[in-house]
Amino acid sequence: MSAFLPQALIRKKRDGQRLSDEEVRAFIAGTSDGSIPDYQVSAMLMAIFFRGLEGGELAVWADAMLRSGDIIDLSDLDRPKVDKHSTGGVGDKISLPLAPAVAACGVAVPMVSGRGLGHTGGTLDKLESIPGFRVQLPIADFVAQVRRIGVCMIGQTDRVAPADRRLYALRDVTGTVESIPLIASSIMSKKLAEGIDALVLDCKVGEGAFMRSRADAVQLARAIQSIGASAGVRVTAVLTNMDAPIGRLVGNALEVAESIQVLGGGGPPDTRELTVALGGEMLVLAGVARDGDDGRARVARALDDGSALEVFRQVVEAQGGEPRVVDDPGGVLPQATRRTPVLAAEGGTVRALAAREIGVAALLLGAGRRRVEDAIDPAAGIELAVHMGDRVERGEPLAFLLSTRAGAADIDAAREMVAGAYRLGPATSVPRTSWILEVLR
Amino acid sequence: MSAFLPQALIRKKRDGQRLSDEEVRAFIAGTSDGSIPDYQVSAMLMAIFFRGLEGGELAVWADAMLRSGDIIDLSDLDRPKVDKHSTGGVGDKISLPLAPAVAACGVAVPMVSGRGLGHTGGTLDKLESIPGFRVQLPIADFVAQVRRIGVCMIGQTDRVAPADRRLYALRDVTGTVESIPLIASSIMSKKLAEGIDALVLDCKVGEGAFMRSRADAVQLARAIQSIGASAGVRVTAVLTNMDAPIGRLVGNALEVAESIQVLGGGGPPDTRELTVALGGEMLVLAGVARDGDDGRARVARALDDGSALEVFRQVVEAQGGEPRVVDDPGGVLPQATRRTPVLAAEGGTVRALAAREIGVAALLLGAGRRRVEDAIDPAAGIELAVHMGDRVERGEPLAFLLSTRAGAADIDAAREMVAGAYRLGPATSVPRTSWILEVLR
Repeated sequence: MSAFLPQALIRKKRDGQRLSDEEVRAFIAGTSDGSIPDYQVSAMLMAIFFRGLEGGELAVWADAMLRSGDIIDLSDLDRPKVDKHSTGGVGDKISLPLAPAVAACGVAVPMVSGRGLGHTGGTLDKLESIPGFRVQLPIADFVAQVRRIGVCMIGQTDRVAPADRRLYALRDVTGTVESIPLIASSIMSKKLAEGIDALVLDCKVGEGAFMRSRADAVQLARAIQSIGASAGVRVTAVLTNMDAPIGRLVGNALEVAESIQVLGGGGPPDTRELTVALGGEMLVLAGVARDGDDGRARVARALDDGSALEVFRQVVEAQGGEPRVVDDPGGVLPQATRRTPVLAAEGGTVRALAAREIGVAALLLGAGRRRVEDAIDPAAGIELAVHMGDRVERGEPLAFLLSTRAGAADIDAAREMVAGAYRLGPATSVPRTSWILEVLR
Repeated sequence: MSAFLPQALIRKKRDGQRLSDEEVRAFIAGTSDGSIPDYQVSAMLMAIFFRGLEGGELAVWADAMLRSGDIIDLSDLDRPKVDKHSTGGVGDKISLPLAPAVAACGVAVPMVSGRGLGHTGGTLDKLESIPGFRVQLPIADFVAQVRRIGVCMIGQTDRVAPADRRLYALRDVTGTVESIPLIASSIMSKKLAEGIDALVLDCKVGEGAFMRSRADAVQLARAIQSIGASAGVRVTAVLTNMDAPIGRLVGNALEVAESIQVLGGGGPPDTRELTVALGGEMLVLAGVARDGDDGRARVARALDDGSALEVFRQVVEAQGGEPRVVDDPGGVLPQATRRTPVLAAEGGTVRALAAREIGVAALLLGAGRRRVEDAIDPAAGIELAVHMGDRVERGEPLAFLLSTRAGAADIDAAREMVAGAYRLGPATSVPRTSWILEVLR
């Protein structure tokens, strides 16, 4: 901690004063090298929860976190480098079709992702449901693959933003997760380490999302954009709806299968719409598309002409996965042994489908983690037989629960939860809410 | 932590909700037995710093802290049991003349005190400057002495309010000391463990005190009174001035010597005034005096007729100290080897004398601790040659620095500090501010 006493910095922040650049860097250095004990870090986190971090202070905080670890150097790549980050949703498999589709349009996508926790899934877990797929690669291999195929999808190494790892673990157990500057700096300390030129932020809003209100989501988007601006990385934030799950399938292998549908030009309309919209913004940031419409058209074309699927096949093969998954998902991906229908107690039209409940039910079936150390069942999950606006008759299935190792109590609880997630009503037209709420450039 | 997740309780407090009695007790139990880690305790402390503890919640918090340890049982004592607690001042030796004087008036004073830290002194350190005096006694001996002599003065054992010990250590290093509910509950968890019927709180206000503003002092007094009310212990709070040091002598053995003067009916007027005022309130609470005037008269009589001094002699003897200290303080108490005058650079009348600077200077000379583990020099301290309203000529001494082991740099710094503590002005009359600002019953 050199010249700074941690408790003096805590008091300063507690009293609403701005920390100097040197003070922020000293605190993050001490967090990263372990010289500041947990109890002082957590007191600072709670003080920041109440007092926030000002614009310039936030940028330095995020930059110090970033520089606590390795930063990937992609500067000699001739293509623009753009990534997408999602704040987390239920059934959110968008990265899987998106990254190959954008790469097929000539943009490099160096994607470093996280694992799922709680009711939202993680890209790494989904990819690992493909037999053989490796998400831990040496950085040199990562860089080489991005150069060759245009996309590589890996997990964070221990050497990326170690300060964030410590802060994140502490926030989780000290009630300091829900802080906009702490969320924004955590995301950006990892994303900026990818060596990207620009980022599209998929900022989820709604009952199934981390940000339940639109105002909070906008605030988070603005905080992330301000960190990006200081680092010379342009950020377009897309606010998207997270009241209902994305697509028909929720669960790791299930979402890979649905992603392959989208990559082949099919798949549920909402999943395709999100892929095309987010990919379009990435192409605009990369300078490959003139505007959003042009970007969306290019991504749609890559999905429809097979080029996105071909990139995905190359990624799977390059990362050790079974490439036949592309042609025969059902034969290659793990399958659940038990399929439990959830039946409609009455007929009606689906007017609401609560994403959070579906996410928690999938977790109960084995698709997610309650704790970081939990193992997941790649085949477990939920197939939604009917979605928003669909008609169902009494006694017909609303959904199917897919499980292998889940006990009867968990299956019963999941069934209750899924049944409760559906709200049925009269067959009048359900107003279709767009998945895209707002684009903040 | 049984049924309660610490992070859930932290979030609840963070969001400004009141914790249930069970939640408070579970959190304190986990703090006391160590099952809640430091980082969660410190996050809770910071959340309380911002959100506070409501009246009933505060009482349960303090009660849970109290019950985390041993409580002394004095219920079969036939006399009323009343103690005094001071929030800490410079030159604050009042407990030493006060406790014997009140005991001489027929009230039991079971006094458990702390050590000094920073610029304020502690009763235990002062008592220990009497050769042989023991402040660690078995509780059975403590009870027996209170029964026999009416007063015993000891230090906290490890078994008193262990939750407070952990909370206090964490507050010190996490910027959460300055919280009224945390201060109030810390004080009361220890005072209520004495088995008292009532308490007089000497709540110091001013530049040399922990509470610099009167509004904060009143808030602290009210918080302590509310905890007392819930526990069935009446608390009278006396707000007293702490802009200038109390008495003419600051330092451990020096303050014992000055206390013996007061016990013999002499001593500086301010020191006697505070002793009489606080003692008078103790007698009122005990039901021994009709009102404040009657109480003060009784305490003054005990000081003047030798009965208070006689009780002090018995206490010293009972606790292993050299009783001749009463008759020959100079011969028994340790003496500093070096006496450095601080001379007036100009003549004038003392219009202000900054307590905090005097306290810090005494600390530099060896009278106090910078860190908990520091040893103190019992003989070190400061003799104030002139005090508020006194006239001094240029070149005459303002004060004398008494030291034995302090280095030249510390002595120089102390001299600067003491010289700077004095503000001299024209010989117009200095308005005498009373030491007693307000009595809150």
